Amino acid sequence: MRPRRERAVEILEAAGAGSLVVAHPSTVTWLTGYAPEIETGPSPFSLSAIAVLSRGGSPLLVVSEDEADAAAATGCEVVTYPGFGIGPLDPIAGAGEALASVHDGGCVAVDAGYLPAALARDIDWVDVAEELVHARAVKDPDEVALMRASIAVCDAGQAAARANAAPGISELELWTAVRGALEAAAETRLPVLADLVSGPRTVEIGGPPGKRTLAEEDLVLCDLVPRVAGYWGDSCATFAVGQPSAAALEAHALVRDVLAELVAAIRPGAVAADLDALARSRLDFPHHTGHGLGTGFHEEPRIIPGSASVLEEGMIVAVEPGIYAGAGVRLEQILLVTAAGCEVLSGHDLSL
Amino acid sequence: MRPRRERAVEILEAAGAGSLVVAHPSTVTWLTGYAPEIETGPSPFSLSAIAVLSRGGSPLLVVSEDEADAAAATGCEVVTYPGFGIGPLDPIAGAGEALASVHDGGCVAVDAGYLPAALARDIDWVDVAEELVHARAVKDPDEVALMRASIAVCDAGQAAARANAAPGISELELWTAVRGALEAAAETRLPVLADLVSGPRTVEIGGPPGKRTLAEEDLVLCDLVPRVAGYWGDSCATFAVGQPSAAALEAHALVRDVLAELVAAIRPGAVAADLDALARSRLDFPHHTGHGLGTGFHEEPRIIPGSASVLEEGMIVAVEPGIYAGAGVRLEQILLVTAAGCEVLSGHDLSL
Repeated sequence: MRPRRERAVEILEAAGAGSLVVAHPSTVTWLTGYAPEIETGPSPFSLSAIAVLSRGGSPLLVVSEDEADAAAATGCEVVTYPGFGIGPLDPIAGAGEALASVHDGGCVAVDAGYLPAALARDIDWVDVAEELVHARAVKDPDEVALMRASIAVCDAGQAAARANAAPGISELELWTAVRGALEAAAETRLPVLADLVSGPRTVEIGGPPGKRTLAEEDLVLCDLVPRVAGYWGDSCATFAVGQPSAAALEAHALVRDVLAELVAAIRPGAVAADLDALARSRLDFPHHTGHGLGTGFHEEPRIIPGSASVLEEGMIVAVEPGIYAGAGVRLEQILLVTAAGCEVLSGHDLSL
Repeated sequence: MRPRRERAVEILEAAGAGSLVVAHPSTVTWLTGYAPEIETGPSPFSLSAIAVLSRGGSPLLVVSEDEADAAAATGCEVVTYPGFGIGPLDPIAGAGEALASVHDGGCVAVDAGYLPAALARDIDWVDVAEELVHARAVKDPDEVALMRASIAVCDAGQAAARANAAPGISELELWTAVRGALEAAAETRLPVLADLVSGPRTVEIGGPPGKRTLAEEDLVLCDLVPRVAGYWGDSCATFAVGQPSAAALEAHALVRDVLAELVAAIRPGAVAADLDALARSRLDFPHHTGHGLGTGFHEEPRIIPGSASVLEEGMIVAVEPGIYAGAGVRLEQILLVTAAGCEVLSGHDLSL
C-alpha cells in the first residue's frame, strides 16, 4: 500500500483536478497531521483549518495566524490570515484570500459537504469525499503508532471508570473521574465522545452521563472515544456495581464470547457483511457490529449488514457486539488487521 | 426592538431573498432554540443542523432522525433525513434532499462561511452573515433568562476553582474539578472553552490547563466559557494560591478598579471604542476589552479600538480588562445593558 499522501494524489488525479482542498477536520488531520480545535464549534476568529494538496504531494495548511506555529510543527507549508486580535474580524474573507493565493485556477477536488460555500463559490470543484473515506481506511505505520497511544488513553479511562464506580455516586460524578483520567493520561485536554449510562439506562444503548445515582447490582456501560493528537481511541466495557445479577452474568458471558469469535475472524480478506452476520447470528442489537477508526471516530470499513468492504492489512477496526434486553451489555475492542489475522490494541478489562 | 425572528425576516427581505438558510450552530440556536452537538466535530451520521426561515417567520430545522425529538421540542417544524443506523451513510445527500424539499427555488439568504458547498451548489444564494451578526447582539427576554442560567453555571465553576486550588495540585487536576462543578451545576455534559493557567503561564494571557503543578504564591487565571442550553456563559477570575506577592496585590487592585470603572460606564449609547479607550488609558493589554455574548461566545458588540458599535438596552457584554507584566491578572464580568445603565449578571468572587 502506498503512503496516504500518494493515495490522495491518486484521488485528485483520477478526478482530473490540479489540487485537493479539504475542510473536514478528520481529513485535514489525515493529510497533514494537524488536528484542528473542535470542542467548541466554529471559532469567531478563524475557519477550521483547510488542507491543500497539489499533485506534487506536499500538503499545505491554510490557518489563522493563531494556529501558525502548531500547523508549521507538522512540517507542512503554512499560509495564514489574521486571527484573534483587536481589529475587525472577517475570517471567511481571510481564509478565502489565503486559499486563492495558493490556487492555480484549475479544477479542484474537494470534500463538498464540509468546504464552506463562500470558499467554493469561485472555484471549479468536483466532490471526492467518498474516495477520501475509502482511502483513509488503511493506516500508515505512523498512524498505527498514534492509534496505539490513543487506545492506551482509553485504557486509562476504563480503569478509572471501574475504580470509581460505587453505589451513591452519580453518572456525572463518575464521568468527571473518567474524563480526568483520560486527560491525565494524555497530559492535556481532549475532545471526548462517550456513552456513560447505568442501571435501566443501559438498555438505551448509550447516552451522556446524567444525574442518575449508581446503586448496588447496577450495570455501567462505558464507551470512551477520546481524540488524542488527532486520532480517536475507542473502547467499551460493561461492568457491575457490586454483585451482578444472574441474568447480567449470562448476558455478559454471551457478548464476551461473541466478541472473541469476532476477534478470531478478523483477518485480511474477511468481508464486513460476514463479520456482521456472525455477530447477529448470536445476538440481537440495533447498531453496527463495528467500524474503522482513525482521524474519524467512525470510518470505513463499517461492519454492517450487506457491506462488501473487505478487510486489509493495516486497517484498524472496532468490534462492539451488544445486547440490550433487560439490561444493556456492550463490549468493544480495537483491532489492527495484520498479515496473519489481527492484533488486539485494546488493553482494558472486559470482565463484568 | 422587535423579536429576533422578526429581525431575521427583515434581513432576508432586505436581501431580496425568499428564505434564510443558516448552518452556523450559533445562528441555528438563535433562530430556533436548538443547540446542535459541537464537542466532537462533524458527525459521520449527520450534518450540523440547518435552520430555514421563511418570510412568514416560522423557522424549520433540517436534522438527522437522531435529532428529531430534540429539534421538535423547540416547537419548530422539523424535516429529517436518516442518521445513525446500520445502512449506508450519506448525510450530505440526505440533508441536501431534505433541504431541497423545503426550498421554493428562489434566492436564499445564507451564512456562506458555514453552509457547505454541496448544499449551496444548486441554490441562488446571497450572504447575510454580517447582518446576522449584528442582529444577534440585542437579546430577547427569553435569551436573557438563558444567559442568567449559563452565568450561574460559570459562578459554580469559579467557586470550584478557588476551593480546589492548592499547592501540589496540577492545572489539569484543578480543571477536572472545575469542569465537574460546571457539569454538576448544569446537570449535564457541557462544551467548555477555558483558559486555566498558573504561575508564570499567566503572562501568556490564556491557554489550556497542563501538567504544571501549583505552588504557594502562584496566581491562577481561570476564564470559563461553558455552553448551557445553547447559550455561552463567560467569566474570569485571577486568584492567589496562599499569600499573593505585593506586586500581584497591586496589579490585581488596578485591574479590579478598571473593571469597576468599565461597569460604571456601560449604558445605552456608550460607544465601544470609548469603553475600550477607557480601559487602555490605564492598562496595557493585547486583547479586546470586551465582547457580546449569547449563542456565540464572542459576538457584537466587540469592545475594541475604533469600534463604532453603540450599546443598546438588551445587549449582554463581557468586559475583561487585564495586565500581563510579571504575572497575568484578568477579571471579567458579564453585564446586561439596561435602560438606566447595566446589571451585573456575574456572581463570582473577584478577590485575589
